[in-house]
Amino acid sequence: MYTLYIGNKNYSSWSLRPWILMRELGIPFNEILIPFNEPGFPAFSSISPTAKVPCLHDGSERVWESLAICEYLAERHEGVWPKDAKARAWARSAASEMHAGFGNLRNVCSMSVGLRVELHKVTPELQKDVDRIGALWSEGLQRFGGPFLAGPTFTAVDAFFAPVAFRFQTYGLPLPKPAADYVKRVLELKGMKEWYAAGLAEKWRDLPHEAETPTFGKITADLRK
Amino acid sequence: MYTLYIGNKNYSSWSLRPWILMRELGIPFNEILIPFNEPGFPAFSSISPTAKVPCLHDGSERVWESLAICEYLAERHEGVWPKDAKARAWARSAASEMHAGFGNLRNVCSMSVGLRVELHKVTPELQKDVDRIGALWSEGLQRFGGPFLAGPTFTAVDAFFAPVAFRFQTYGLPLPKPAADYVKRVLELKGMKEWYAAGLAEKWRDLPHEAETPTFGKITADLRK
Repeated sequence: MYTLYIGNKNYSSWSLRPWILMRELGIPFNEILIPFNEPGFPAFSSISPTAKVPCLHDGSERVWESLAICEYLAERHEGVWPKDAKARAWARSAASEMHAGFGNLRNVCSMSVGLRVELHKVTPELQKDVDRIGALWSEGLQRFGGPFLAGPTFTAVDAFFAPVAFRFQTYGLPLPKPAADYVKRVLELKGMKEWYAAGLAEKWRDLPHEAETPTFGKITADLRK
Repeated sequence: MYTLYIGNKNYSSWSLRPWILMRELGIPFNEILIPFNEPGFPAFSSISPTAKVPCLHDGSERVWESLAICEYLAERHEGVWPKDAKARAWARSAASEMHAGFGNLRNVCSMSVGLRVELHKVTPELQKDVDRIGALWSEGLQRFGGPFLAGPTFTAVDAFFAPVAFRFQTYGLPLPKPAADYVKRVLELKGMKEWYAAGLAEKWRDLPHEAETPTFGKITADLRK
């Protein structure tokens, strides 16, 4: 049985990626959540060579980095990437682009699933990231027929953009219709609802994460318990 | 036949990754170099959906992002990733870590293969990146027996760190012995020598790239023709 180490469900966008992939694909795993900056939990350095989450343990093997975890699972389970070779090449390009890109969206609109935020301003750099997301998603949905980014089933490229769906919900940024509909569809997935509910129920508040959001926008709602 | 679009050999570290992988593995390809900010060349947006290099064209398919290019090639050619499953999982984790990480090394020590530079200072953040590279390489070399990072042959994880070898040559940063020896070995590869010679012979000078280096260090030699 795999063990997936993750961070807080409110904040840890990287953790969500392999988690939602395994959940939606029905790959069994134990989940161990280590909250940020809480006493009494193991150090991140004790579970991952980069001292970061997520990290997948498979027996004595440790696979770090969400993209490498996807490829590790793809060698062992059906459905991680699309069956169609062209859709698969597109999906990997798009997931890699997310893995290293969209820096403005990631900095300004950090994931905090329970919050609703009005941004102080949308800079041209942020708008460029939003436009590229809209174009990329629309391209995939149109080219491969939907309802997921690279075709009929939820694959790793959807998992890579799943945290972005939470971000669009929190920050209310406008998207072209096919992309906006896709956000709604992703948020309705059983696994996304499960993650969201767990995030709302979390009692931990990580001060660095909490302090970040007000620098970029006004918090209009906090739905956490 | 594949066509690989790349940027200047002096500067384009991302271009080097798939280029050196295909060269070392003997995968035939046409190379098209589009220099940065030079009139008379096609726009990057005309060859890649992200307007960035590298981009691999295979017939009508476009595969962007260096990591996605590696996986695309891995489905079609032997030897892109190590044969051993554990070495392969490690190699993918390490390559993904490079794909999205080592931000300080990438910012302060940008690739400029013909220059030799004395850094004004090595910040703790840069030293942390250097230490992690030393530890990661030493781990791979020891665990999988070398002479390459994940075993006996040059694979995509070596390609991912190939630009870092040029960086260590340019900036003269100290590394633990196994890692320093590895840099020498990589720089001696036929493909690396070919790239280096072509970089030295390039006549284009991209002002933004040229202006970057002196902000971080003193140029002690410029070996370009």
